[in-house]
Amino acid sequence: MIKAKARAVDGPDQSFRVAEINRRDLDLHDVLIEIKYAGICHSDIHTAHGEWGEVNYPLVPGHEIAGVVTEIGPEVTQYKVGDRVGVGCMVDSCGTCENCLEGEEQYCLKGNVPTYAGVDKYGEPTQGGYSTHIVVTEGFVVKIPDNIELDAAAPLLCAGITTYSPLVRWGAGPGKKVAVVGMGGLGHMAVKIAHAMGAEVTVLSQTLNKKEDGLQFGAAHYYATSEPDTFTQLAGTFDLIINTVSAEIDMNAYLSLLTLNGTLVNVGAPGEPLSLNVMSLISHRRSFAGSMIGGIRETQEMLDFCAKHDITPNIEVISADDIDHAYKRVLASDVKYRFVIDTSTL
Amino acid sequence: MIKAKARAVDGPDQSFRVAEINRRDLDLHDVLIEIKYAGICHSDIHTAHGEWGEVNYPLVPGHEIAGVVTEIGPEVTQYKVGDRVGVGCMVDSCGTCENCLEGEEQYCLKGNVPTYAGVDKYGEPTQGGYSTHIVVTEGFVVKIPDNIELDAAAPLLCAGITTYSPLVRWGAGPGKKVAVVGMGGLGHMAVKIAHAMGAEVTVLSQTLNKKEDGLQFGAAHYYATSEPDTFTQLAGTFDLIINTVSAEIDMNAYLSLLTLNGTLVNVGAPGEPLSLNVMSLISHRRSFAGSMIGGIRETQEMLDFCAKHDITPNIEVISADDIDHAYKRVLASDVKYRFVIDTSTL
Repeated sequence: MIKAKARAVDGPDQSFRVAEINRRDLDLHDVLIEIKYAGICHSDIHTAHGEWGEVNYPLVPGHEIAGVVTEIGPEVTQYKVGDRVGVGCMVDSCGTCENCLEGEEQYCLKGNVPTYAGVDKYGEPTQGGYSTHIVVTEGFVVKIPDNIELDAAAPLLCAGITTYSPLVRWGAGPGKKVAVVGMGGLGHMAVKIAHAMGAEVTVLSQTLNKKEDGLQFGAAHYYATSEPDTFTQLAGTFDLIINTVSAEIDMNAYLSLLTLNGTLVNVGAPGEPLSLNVMSLISHRRSFAGSMIGGIRETQEMLDFCAKHDITPNIEVISADDIDHAYKRVLASDVKYRFVIDTSTL
Repeated sequence: MIKAKARAVDGPDQSFRVAEINRRDLDLHDVLIEIKYAGICHSDIHTAHGEWGEVNYPLVPGHEIAGVVTEIGPEVTQYKVGDRVGVGCMVDSCGTCENCLEGEEQYCLKGNVPTYAGVDKYGEPTQGGYSTHIVVTEGFVVKIPDNIELDAAAPLLCAGITTYSPLVRWGAGPGKKVAVVGMGGLGHMAVKIAHAMGAEVTVLSQTLNKKEDGLQFGAAHYYATSEPDTFTQLAGTFDLIINTVSAEIDMNAYLSLLTLNGTLVNVGAPGEPLSLNVMSLISHRRSFAGSMIGGIRETQEMLDFCAKHDITPNIEVISADDIDHAYKRVLASDVKYRFVIDTSTL
């Protein structure tokens, strides 16, 4: 067993505390990573608060992990000690189902193994990145390109791939009008990536508070959704809408902004079922779709894309003692645009 | 003015009565069609009963029209007297918006002119196919191939194109598993067309009552959705589901039957908004889409496809006096599979 320092919660209403957790000894294809930075994703908060179903506490969240390889298993071929690497939302999958074979491990038919709050193939609960070390099979590790700093790399492992994947799949690029709903951790990445892909990007945010940032990230237009005029003015405009908002919104209003054959992709799942007027779809052959992170190959592709286009998230690096406070600030939308824990403070 | 005999209703609760209506004198590009047969579509019933918004009674429904050209306007180039022709759900559109220019007149940005219960460019209310004659601009008329009888051709103009269009768009063909929800007028056409396209077709119907027919129409499998096992057994199976049922169904259960990247297309619109669990989409990058009839060019393509593959709807030809009774039978799902009015009985 490998001992690691971590921060854990013991229940839905608890604060984070210092913890020591065990990481497994290296299996043949395992990589030991010294974690340098871990991003704070809204999913961490939902899970820590027990809002996404029962959790086996104590829980160490964190699935935006950047670090350095410090040891490798005897049959590891892709990584060596000293490599700068990342781990995202999953750490394993069956590897044999048709989705895994297609490189779509996130949709593993037997269920992928989430980085935390899951159970690995050894029957052990998985614990995430708010920790000094993690052991991961090499197939679920990605290389961080040299020109991306490790602190900035961390959020790419979830916020980056979650937005990159649907933008690729639904053809964001030159000549396409893409709207991004929400200007949080995911939204600001979606704007940067869609812009780099050549699309004409519009931000749809509740207010104009972050307009200046949005335009700087590459948006051509920025609208406040609290203005009723916005929906009239933009009716039938977008080829693609990426909705990064998990809170309940009037989906029919957003669908009305799509052009013929347009698609609205949800990358977050509202807790409650939403009300959908099917006529919003039929009247312009629109689609409402969902997308979940991306496969490992695609995650590497995203990192390389970001490196090539010099795209990184805007982050605020915090100390481990500030996790509880950071959670509060995320819930109050008071973050520009991602908190990243410096694990040297664990 | 051209006088035509018709059957009309005067209100939501009224029976059909004999009526005489006026058709406009032929404009430059108009075609006068002597209607031979008119199909009864569920939309006719919704509209006649005032369930789809306010209606200007008296109303003559009917948008599955097959007949013969008896006169043409001076600048008509595509049709001549004696041609066997059809008219579907729309009789005009702006012709200049980007959707019209793409041949997607059904999605005209200014709104297409529906065959009945609409208002044409002359400001006159449109009246449908339960009538002896209709005048339509040639751009909204299609040729009925020689090997399709006029009575059987009529339902293709709505039930045929409504199912053909999404099957083409979402790639029904060899190697694809397609499910058809509902075995009514639309559903039975979807089965025949998808089968002819080479897809492996499954029918999902409430009961197994029409199983024998379904298999004969080309379905490889037939399941009763009243059996809870069906949804467990077929989870993650279909590349494409065409939902022809307008009544409220548990959409999340049906979405769970889609494979990775699968699409469920609604071709009918339930009266009430439906409840959608977004996780049903996200968990396998599924899409929920809507589709409305098809463009005129595509309608012609559909007729030619049906002619080539020897596909026609199963119909029951009725006399005009039986329209009210036929409506009752449609509402009781007691029709195999489309009523067609013989307009010589008007």
